[in-house]
Amino acid sequence: MNSRIRVTVWNEFRHEQRNPKVQEHYPQGIHAVIAGALAGEDVDVRTATLDEPEHGLTAEVLGQTDVLLWWGHLAHDEVRDEVVERVYDRVMEGMGLIVLHSGHFSRIFKRLMGTTCDLKWREGNDRERLWVVSPGHPIVEGVGEYIQLEHEEMYGEHFDIPAPDTLVFISWFTGGEVFRSGACYERGRGKIFYFRPGHETHPTYHHPDVQRVLRNAVHWAAPTVRSTPRAFGHAQPLEGAGS
Amino acid sequence: MNSRIRVTVWNEFRHEQRNPKVQEHYPQGIHAVIAGALAGEDVDVRTATLDEPEHGLTAEVLGQTDVLLWWGHLAHDEVRDEVVERVYDRVMEGMGLIVLHSGHFSRIFKRLMGTTCDLKWREGNDRERLWVVSPGHPIVEGVGEYIQLEHEEMYGEHFDIPAPDTLVFISWFTGGEVFRSGACYERGRGKIFYFRPGHETHPTYHHPDVQRVLRNAVHWAAPTVRSTPRAFGHAQPLEGAGS
Amino acid sequence: MNSRIRVTVWNEFRHEQRNPKVQEHYPQGIHAVIAGALAGEDVDVRTATLDEPEHGLTAEVLGQTDVLLWWGHLAHDEVRDEVVERVYDRVMEGMGLIVLHSGHFSRIFKRLMGTTCDLKWREGNDRERLWVVSPGHPIVEGVGEYIQLEHEEMYGEHFDIPAPDTLVFISWFTGGEVFRSGACYERGRGKIFYFRPGHETHPTYHHPDVQRVLRNAVHWAAPTVRSTPRAFGHAQPLEGAGS
Amino acid sequence: MNSRIRVTVWNEFRHEQRNPKVQEHYPQGIHAVIAGALAGEDVDVRTATLDEPEHGLTAEVLGQTDVLLWWGHLAHDEVRDEVVERVYDRVMEGMGLIVLHSGHFSRIFKRLMGTTCDLKWREGNDRERLWVVSPGHPIVEGVGEYIQLEHEEMYGEHFDIPAPDTLVFISWFTGGEVFRSGACYERGRGKIFYFRPGHETHPTYHHPDVQRVLRNAVHWAAPTVRSTPRAFGHAQPLEGAGS
Repeated sequence: MNSRIRVTVWNEFRHEQRNPKVQEHYPQGIHAVIAGALAGEDVDVRTATLDEPEHGLTAEVLGQTDVLLWWGHLAHDEVRDEVVERVYDRVMEGMGLIVLHSGHFSRIFKRLMGTTCDLKWREGNDRERLWVVSPGHPIVEGVGEYIQLEHEEMYGEHFDIPAPDTLVFISWFTGGEVFRSGACYERGRGKIFYFRPGHETHPTYHHPDVQRVLRNAVHWAAPTVRSTPRAFGHAQPLEGAGS
Repeated sequence: MNSRIRVTVWNEFRHEQRNPKVQEHYPQGIHAVIAGALAGEDVDVRTATLDEPEHGLTAEVLGQTDVLLWWGHLAHDEVRDEVVERVYDRVMEGMGLIVLHSGHFSRIFKRLMGTTCDLKWREGNDRERLWVVSPGHPIVEGVGEYIQLEHEEMYGEHFDIPAPDTLVFISWFTGGEVFRSGACYERGRGKIFYFRPGHETHPTYHHPDVQRVLRNAVHWAAPTVRSTPRAFGHAQPLEGAGS
Repeated sequence: MNSRIRVTVWNEFRHEQRNPKVQEHYPQGIHAVIAGALAGEDVDVRTATLDEPEHGLTAEVLGQTDVLLWWGHLAHDEVRDEVVERVYDRVMEGMGLIVLHSGHFSRIFKRLMGTTCDLKWREGNDRERLWVVSPGHPIVEGVGEYIQLEHEEMYGEHFDIPAPDTLVFISWFTGGEVFRSGACYERGRGKIFYFRPGHETHPTYHHPDVQRVLRNAVHWAAPTVRSTPRAFGHAQPLEGAGS
Repeated sequence: MNSRIRVTVWNEFRHEQRNPKVQEHYPQGIHAVIAGALAGEDVDVRTATLDEPEHGLTAEVLGQTDVLLWWGHLAHDEVRDEVVERVYDRVMEGMGLIVLHSGHFSRIFKRLMGTTCDLKWREGNDRERLWVVSPGHPIVEGVGEYIQLEHEEMYGEHFDIPAPDTLVFISWFTGGEVFRSGACYERGRGKIFYFRPGHETHPTYHHPDVQRVLRNAVHWAAPTVRSTPRAFGHAQPLEGAGS
């Protein structure tokens, strides 16, 4: 029901400047590949990174953002309080938020979940299969029964998150673990999607089905055009109400 | 993400032929008013009623229906087994289903819920206020904090349904009752929305906000264009899997 | 909050009479092993099987049952309508129901879920790991991070069930599949737990953690002593209510 | 499954020292009345208040607390950071938390919910009816269809909380509002119950059904005796796993 959706892809953008193995897959940064995958007929995309002033997330930028994507890993603690609160306020108002991979430990995700968001992990030779468990959900439109990634970092349960409002994907890993890898939440008036894959040393964000899921998620998370007002505070009774 | 949505409005269409008070509000039937409210730029609407052959719900009609709306009251038991199963099969495949008011006791709704779907009720002088409790949900796009209906039949808790996947509205009634009056479910690949108001002796379906909710619900419940396949039965292991 | 819990273990009891491989693990039947595991200080257990009159589930037996366990596979269609409805009515009233393994296709489970309950399967050399994803839940009291079964039949997603009210276990299988293998539901006033493992050719019900989960589940599913009344039908307004 | 449950009732304890209308109902403080209602055969109770050192919630006290109740209103901001974090850490480990009435705006509740927890309110002449919508839940054991309170402060939707894992009560108010007034959550390994009524100028905590709900909630929220371990961090693959 939206006309054009305004997306901001936020990336920590540190690994790409240091690690040749990451540069190989993401020479312009992870954000550039994701932005390229999202831009389209009905989606306008900009990017923002940690080392820009205000991390690129000024009040003006966030005020013009319908859906924010978040990739972070090494430097969660460098994200400043006021930016975390600014993003948080926008989610309460209805901005969509898509949290990627190691963003499970970002300050904004922990703030919104209210739990530690801790998990198991292993860098190794795992294959990952993301099985669709909610096959009618718009986020899996056009996706098959599962998405298979030949090499990915393993994340395993227990994943310390609230039970998702809707669980969309469950991952299988070669080494014996499972993970709730696609999880939808509604918080305030905002929609949140956590999507597990995307380790920086693998070409995951080039995978067509991963890109498709992100595009679908952007459409799902975009706020409704005329959102329901929410009035808090003191209230008058209904006229004519008994007592 | 759909192009045009094909809607079928099903109505029992008995009250309207017998009760002058109902005819006053719905001279062509409840289905005619709802169909008129739904038809639009991206929605094609047809109607079907109980006394047509196969209740108007042939395999061909259902095969061309993306979202089915259901209003029934007096004659739930006259709906034939094979039509109930046909609708059920289509919901499992992905057809959306919007169940209205007294349709809580329809055979198809009870079949899908797995509970008695029983409730309290009173015809009287109740006012109803439907409060939005999920303000970011697409079904309440453009709706205010609540919808107020000056005269409606009361339905009260306990409403014997499964806990909704998403609860969208809670109703308040003058006489002291509450009711979960907007409830979303996913069953199979289909989306189901139960929407409480719509007693036949009140002009409820002429109310602009009620019509807006129905239009929103049609868009929400429409199946995705390229749905995720579901394969059941015997399966081969992943190549190279250990043991 | 219950004093003694009255449990009935129902078993189809056909495999055990025909298949030596099954007899080896369950010479007296699967029900006998489960009953032995459940009987204890605060639990009284009886058993019932398909070929008894009324399948052993007379109105009297069910009226004295707080929690019913259900194992069936070959002969789901032989379970008579009136027994299915009798069990169903008791669940609506508050009797707990624990559905085991191939019971996913039993008539009573499909009746309560409202979906096809279909899934993938493979008899082979899979190992299964049931990961706990709800570590504070009473059903996993005393269980470690996961339960590992060296040989089990594989069940894989998509499992066509409603999203569980609480998801307790997710299974990993060697061959590349995952499965929601411990799922809690509330239907009517009854609590339902589906627990995946338990193929007849494996000694699964002898495993101490499987037995522990079943004991925990019996305590979880037992009805409260003084259940909340549910009044349906016509209702009077609150005295003094306005209009 | 617990032997004795160790409960701590925390109260801000300011209104009672200033307002004669509050003193009339709670001469020893709200905490004293609640503690008296909870103490029993299998429950040990202590109390703690804001103006004690460390607000009475030392590491030792919390380490010996299975379930914490929280009533606060005027002085949420005076609760110190380290105490909020200490309570939070204990909930993650499995301590139950019951948040009462105006505690919806406490720092610990907002921390755990991840939302603003804002709402509508009115002090006036409202009657409140708390309708049971989850009649098989242990928290409503022994409670009728609803609890009626002749005078209470009104809290109305939209209540800005995550969708509850289980919704137990919905309140009706004379003046036209509804409210999700009994809400269960699982966060980390801890269980949380928010229970709406309890304005300081009304004798709500003397009401037998309110006391019954609190007693039930204490039993529901108590941690399991042998909780499931949760291992986070680096993990080894399953032996023999393929790649």
